[in-house]
Amino acid sequence: MERLVVDMDGVLADVYPHFFHYDEIEGGRRKTVEEVTGIPELEAFPNIRKYIYSKGFFRALVPIEDSQEILKQLNERYELFIVSAATEFPLSLEEKHAWLNEYFPYISWQQMVFCGQKHIIDADIMIDDHFRHLDRFKNRTILFSQPHNLAKDAGRHERVNSWKEIAGLLLK
Amino acid sequence: MERLVVDMDGVLADVYPHFFHYDEIEGGRRKTVEEVTGIPELEAFPNIRKYIYSKGFFRALVPIEDSQEILKQLNERYELFIVSAATEFPLSLEEKHAWLNEYFPYISWQQMVFCGQKHIIDADIMIDDHFRHLDRFKNRTILFSQPHNLAKDAGRHERVNSWKEIAGLLLK
Repeated sequence: MERLVVDMDGVLADVYPHFFHYDEIEGGRRKTVEEVTGIPELEAFPNIRKYIYSKGFFRALVPIEDSQEILKQLNERYELFIVSAATEFPLSLEEKHAWLNEYFPYISWQQMVFCGQKHIIDADIMIDDHFRHLDRFKNRTILFSQPHNLAKDAGRHERVNSWKEIAGLLLK
Repeated sequence: MERLVVDMDGVLADVYPHFFHYDEIEGGRRKTVEEVTGIPELEAFPNIRKYIYSKGFFRALVPIEDSQEILKQLNERYELFIVSAATEFPLSLEEKHAWLNEYFPYISWQQMVFCGQKHIIDADIMIDDHFRHLDRFKNRTILFSQPHNLAKDAGRHERVNSWKEIAGLLLK
């Protein structure tokens, strides 16, 4: 059984609606997707660290469309792990655990990994929205499209724009 | 630079004094080390899950003798990660993060991994007190002696009884 590693923020959890919302509260105007396309999250939303360090931020996120149903099927076909670069944000750890329990109840604690860097993870396939994680991963890499990575060529990574496309690649 | 993975409970954090203490409060008598030698922690201390699920348990632990000084030297000679099977205990996540920050301030969030299973970690050397983690690890394994593992032969793992012995093996 192949081992599959799936990221949380930007792959399972929809972070951009919250970034737009918090940024609008502070800036008085809601940015458009075009304005933040191809721009690192930290530059697109200058106070992003304040948002993601605040209690409740991660717990309030909404799952990305189709992720719950398709991940359930992947969970039956792969040795699945959810790997989140979360240790930078200590408050997020318990929230991410509770969030997975709520929206992905078929994911057990044995399948959760909260870390700082992902290059120490040994797996066959990695799905992530950040080049910094995919670039250091030795095996098959799938780039999940998010505004911050859209302008850049996917390089050796396979780009997907939705969970339906992931199903097309991994559930055939 | 070789990648070294070090466990927390029973290797960096001294859990037995707390197990004896909580067990004594409930049972009215302090067990001896002899009584719990060679016995899985769960059998030796029947209510152990209650203790480790309670808020504050992990935060109150004390570092094992010499671990702070020797790990600091290892941190300069190895690509070091602290890997703790912590996701079974969601309350422990933030506590373990804070505990590392207090007692091992040279360990950054980039070097922390909180997971459920350790066989997905890719490294050269693993130090742990549990056979279930070491047995599935492909490379060099070092068993840190704790009462629960004392009666069993170390098998292919190298057994150490102290952090000074770890220094003898890895800092020569």
